[in-house]
Amino acid sequence: MQNETIEKLIEQFRTLPSVGYKTAQRYAYSIIEGSKTRAENFSNAIIEAKTKIGFCKICGNFTDREICDICEKRNRKIVCVVKEPKDVVSMEKVKDYAGVYHVLFGTISPLENRGPDDIRIRELLERIKNDGVEEVIMATNPDVEGDATAMYIARLLNPLGVKVTRLAQGVSMGSDLEYADEVTLSRAMEERRLMR
Amino acid sequence: MQNETIEKLIEQFRTLPSVGYKTAQRYAYSIIEGSKTRAENFSNAIIEAKTKIGFCKICGNFTDREICDICEKRNRKIVCVVKEPKDVVSMEKVKDYAGVYHVLFGTISPLENRGPDDIRIRELLERIKNDGVEEVIMATNPDVEGDATAMYIARLLNPLGVKVTRLAQGVSMGSDLEYADEVTLSRAMEERRLMR
Repeated sequence: MQNETIEKLIEQFRTLPSVGYKTAQRYAYSIIEGSKTRAENFSNAIIEAKTKIGFCKICGNFTDREICDICEKRNRKIVCVVKEPKDVVSMEKVKDYAGVYHVLFGTISPLENRGPDDIRIRELLERIKNDGVEEVIMATNPDVEGDATAMYIARLLNPLGVKVTRLAQGVSMGSDLEYADEVTLSRAMEERRLMR
Repeated sequence: MQNETIEKLIEQFRTLPSVGYKTAQRYAYSIIEGSKTRAENFSNAIIEAKTKIGFCKICGNFTDREICDICEKRNRKIVCVVKEPKDVVSMEKVKDYAGVYHVLFGTISPLENRGPDDIRIRELLERIKNDGVEEVIMATNPDVEGDATAMYIARLLNPLGVKVTRLAQGVSMGSDLEYADEVTLSRAMEERRLMR
């Protein structure tokens, strides 16, 4: 236990994901030891981000407008479905993807008591009706929940005549077969492709 | 690369110790997804800490007054010397310590080009002259730099007739001998004590 003002700042840092007391204390001390300008910039950036940034009305991703840049400019007939906003940042590394996104804000997880109605599946269905979507690319994580969610959505969309695809699963570029797990190897084998 | 406002907040989080881009992004997203009140409290706590908290004129530790609570109320004839403010928090777990502290803000490190004049040794010497200090407990970390700094200060203070002690080193409570390193075991052996 230490000074109340410092404790307050430590408590704030502890509200960040996976930050325990010692890490929060280190962060708080770095603020106190740093310059006043830095503290002011930090404080303003928090308020500014919270004030300016909201959710895109179409895809749900963060934006400072009503409709985000990606939804505004790109091909809305191809929709890549991801779990979280950070996944959009990752997928954007695929330089020639010209479609748009749909952020679910979660995956179906019976264990955590999260069903289809708790993530943005209804909004996805509406987009499909309104925008004449031709392909939905399921890019949820390659884990149990991600796979289950992809499967659920595929079953929902297939009767509507929408092509649903899933990111290929297999061994990663630059990795070593020796350290690949069984599931990854089996998937890579199943999805093997013909070399011409 | 994403929205500029979000990037700004990510950049601020990256200024915290050992925070890389992905962690900073996670923190920033948690602010944006969180409530407005939480963002305001966070922002205010940063400014308040930086504005209210300064350094104690005597021991150098963080405080919101000119002289900290510990220096104000406790026995100034016993001084425990530590490397950083967080070490004061750790040492305060020793419930019956009634003395005060001296924060060096670093240790002597030839590798990092940090000599005796770069840490608060001069201030320690002044306290010893002014406060009639009887014992200086060296509680710098039990590593090369911490030991060297303790040794340096001991040599400086011994001629002044001040008793200089060092925290005992040995095997930790609850640890397993099998996993103790050589240096720790040798120290524990050297400093073994008589059981009566």
